[in-house]
Amino acid sequence: MTDALEAKKLLIRAVECDQSGRILEAQSLYQDGIAKLMSFVSSEPDDQRRKGFLTRIKEYMDRADAIKARVNGKLMLGEVVAHISIEENDTGYDYVQLFGKYMTDKTVEILIEEPYLTQNYQYQNLIRFLELAVTNCSEFKYLRLITKQDTANVDQQRTNLGQIKADLERRNVAFNIKYEDSLHDRKIYLSNGYIIKIGRGLHFYKANNPLYSIGLTNYRYRKCLQTDVDIWRNSSTGN
Amino acid sequence: MTDALEAKKLLIRAVECDQSGRILEAQSLYQDGIAKLMSFVSSEPDDQRRKGFLTRIKEYMDRADAIKARVNGKLMLGEVVAHISIEENDTGYDYVQLFGKYMTDKTVEILIEEPYLTQNYQYQNLIRFLELAVTNCSEFKYLRLITKQDTANVDQQRTNLGQIKADLERRNVAFNIKYEDSLHDRKIYLSNGYIIKIGRGLHFYKANNPLYSIGLTNYRYRKCLQTDVDIWRNSSTGN
Repeated sequence: MTDALEAKKLLIRAVECDQSGRILEAQSLYQDGIAKLMSFVSSEPDDQRRKGFLTRIKEYMDRADAIKARVNGKLMLGEVVAHISIEENDTGYDYVQLFGKYMTDKTVEILIEEPYLTQNYQYQNLIRFLELAVTNCSEFKYLRLITKQDTANVDQQRTNLGQIKADLERRNVAFNIKYEDSLHDRKIYLSNGYIIKIGRGLHFYKANNPLYSIGLTNYRYRKCLQTDVDIWRNSSTGN
Repeated sequence: MTDALEAKKLLIRAVECDQSGRILEAQSLYQDGIAKLMSFVSSEPDDQRRKGFLTRIKEYMDRADAIKARVNGKLMLGEVVAHISIEENDTGYDYVQLFGKYMTDKTVEILIEEPYLTQNYQYQNLIRFLELAVTNCSEFKYLRLITKQDTANVDQQRTNLGQIKADLERRNVAFNIKYEDSLHDRKIYLSNGYIIKIGRGLHFYKANNPLYSIGLTNYRYRKCLQTDVDIWRNSSTGN
């Protein structure tokens, strides 16, 4: 009964998110809700009730499919609105300078595809990006992160991302993590319609050298690695 | 002869700084120049030349005394223009929020009295302050730091501060370090006439916990220790 209740709660929230245009979060919630429903349908002894559940599962699956089509539409690249070529050793490119202006009150959901999250500086870059999101996007409600599993350090990665998840939840931002080992390309999708593509993803800064010098904490003064930044606006209208 | 030339160069720069109102830097340069002159006067065999040098040393010492009086005047507290009481666990107090608006294009010289610079996070706080100075004060030219010697780690402290000095010099900011073991009070003097007094000096942030959470790099989200921040405007007029 707890499972059924939990499934119900997830699916109610899924429909709410769906209706308010939070399609990434709706997608996660449909998936989780459906999985939860599935898990106890098989152990339901009453045939009639089981059929009832299956009908509802089918309904939710249809909704989830519709959402998937919308998500894919949102992720389709439309036109490039800005292109920045960062040269080796360039400075002046903190995240806020590069794409702060695209992160606005209308950015409710964010999807980050970032294959590499295994080193301390990489977790730190993720936090720096999220600090910018929390600062600029007053309505930020949902984050999905797709990354590769750190096979050398599975536990550390789960602990770190788990701590980030708990921290975001305290700020009313739901955080969904998906591991995909074949991921290569880097992409950040903002629900206000902008897509940030950086050749090196979030990790295009050189280490500060010497450590205690200007650039240690303000990355505007950090030397960069060569990479290209393209800002796209997606082709589907509105949100 | 190299010593004489060097002394001459120092004293010419001292007079230049003096005339352009950069009194902290002038003070350092007079001291260094006078010390350099002294060091070879005693080995000058020609009586007449020695007298000549002594006369000039006397002149420069008078100028240095006059500067000292002006520096002391500048450091005298006038009126409090802002008072902020930070409570334990408060957030929202990055340096830029607290006193960024007092650090302006008219801040040419800065004097930091900060007794404690021995731990990594303390050097990091100094860098964070300097990043703000470099960002906000386009005419920033001279920094004097007064701090206690790290008796447990003299070499490490010299290395760290030496690296910061070299870094600032690359940005055309002269950096003078003075060790004073009896220092207790914290004070930051800005040459545009503002004096920042913080009970705990630069070090009033708690460690980020857990490490990877909002607040790791943007201190606006860091929890603080209890401390008072008073911003004074000094009583002498002008710059």
